[in-house]
Amino acid sequence: MAEKGDAPAARVVLQQCLQARLQVKPAGDQSEAQFVQIDRGMVIYICFFKGATDDMMPKMVSALLNLRLCESDSGKLVSVLELPGSLLIVPQATLGGKAKGRAMQYHNNISKEDGLRLYGAFVSLCEEELRAGPSAQSGAEVTVKHGTYGNRQVLKLDTNGPYTHLMEF
Amino acid sequence: MAEKGDAPAARVVLQQCLQARLQVKPAGDQSEAQFVQIDRGMVIYICFFKGATDDMMPKMVSALLNLRLCESDSGKLVSVLELPGSLLIVPQATLGGKAKGRAMQYHNNISKEDGLRLYGAFVSLCEEELRAGPSAQSGAEVTVKHGTYGNRQVLKLDTNGPYTHLMEF
Repeated sequence: MAEKGDAPAARVVLQQCLQARLQVKPAGDQSEAQFVQIDRGMVIYICFFKGATDDMMPKMVSALLNLRLCESDSGKLVSVLELPGSLLIVPQATLGGKAKGRAMQYHNNISKEDGLRLYGAFVSLCEEELRAGPSAQSGAEVTVKHGTYGNRQVLKLDTNGPYTHLMEF
Repeated sequence: MAEKGDAPAARVVLQQCLQARLQVKPAGDQSEAQFVQIDRGMVIYICFFKGATDDMMPKMVSALLNLRLCESDSGKLVSVLELPGSLLIVPQATLGGKAKGRAMQYHNNISKEDGLRLYGAFVSLCEEELRAGPSAQSGAEVTVKHGTYGNRQVLKLDTNGPYTHLMEF
């Protein structure tokens, strides 16, 4: 977690879900919209700031996926890797907003090119960690789904308690 | 917005919605669960820290409700008061969490009694502002709904883009 006073390089909002469904391709003239969906697990909304680096990604992914934020059937708090839970990763540049008067400004957000690269790396590492995690290894059907960077994130969320958490790195 | 380095007294996550539905009373032995619902508008997840005061509430509510975060039908960014939009307020103590190792700690969260009082004041002020705002005054059907402090927040969210924002005060 970024220390108080340090400007963060990444901001993440986490919500628990029973089911979540995200549009990954809007409808076109000749095509229907496309969606991805997870069942029980965690939605990760992520935003990178200027200064975010590839080097941060492994530590960040490990921290997020190993935090005990998820309520197991027995009521115990476990990580999403242990739940077993799936992941829905949602790029969310708006999280970098800072209010100036009545408007939001996004001056500290990373450039689109760097953000796209870091987002890809983040998603890949989440896939690796989930695949190597205890739930996947014991045969649970867990998966990583993710939104398309730069798109509008059309989302349906169904939760028994979002237990919304903020993490900065 | 709290300045960098100041510990915030309140943390708020905002999401835009087409529809949102929240349980306000769980099912009992003899009774069904009760829900509240809004259509287009904004979901406000709110958490108070130690040091939050009644004096902060008017400025906070005014800032949140007047921020231009909502996409109007014409694509212009307007406030939820102008949209016209409704509000769903969700108490969310987990937002105060700070990671220590793999566990989340909530040591800076306000006491339950103070939190309950501030939450009530926050909801009342939101109702007042919405009622006095341009949409309600011109006859739009906008409303404030809110969750029960201390309950599990069973939620369904449907959004065309949550445009998740973080605000600290």
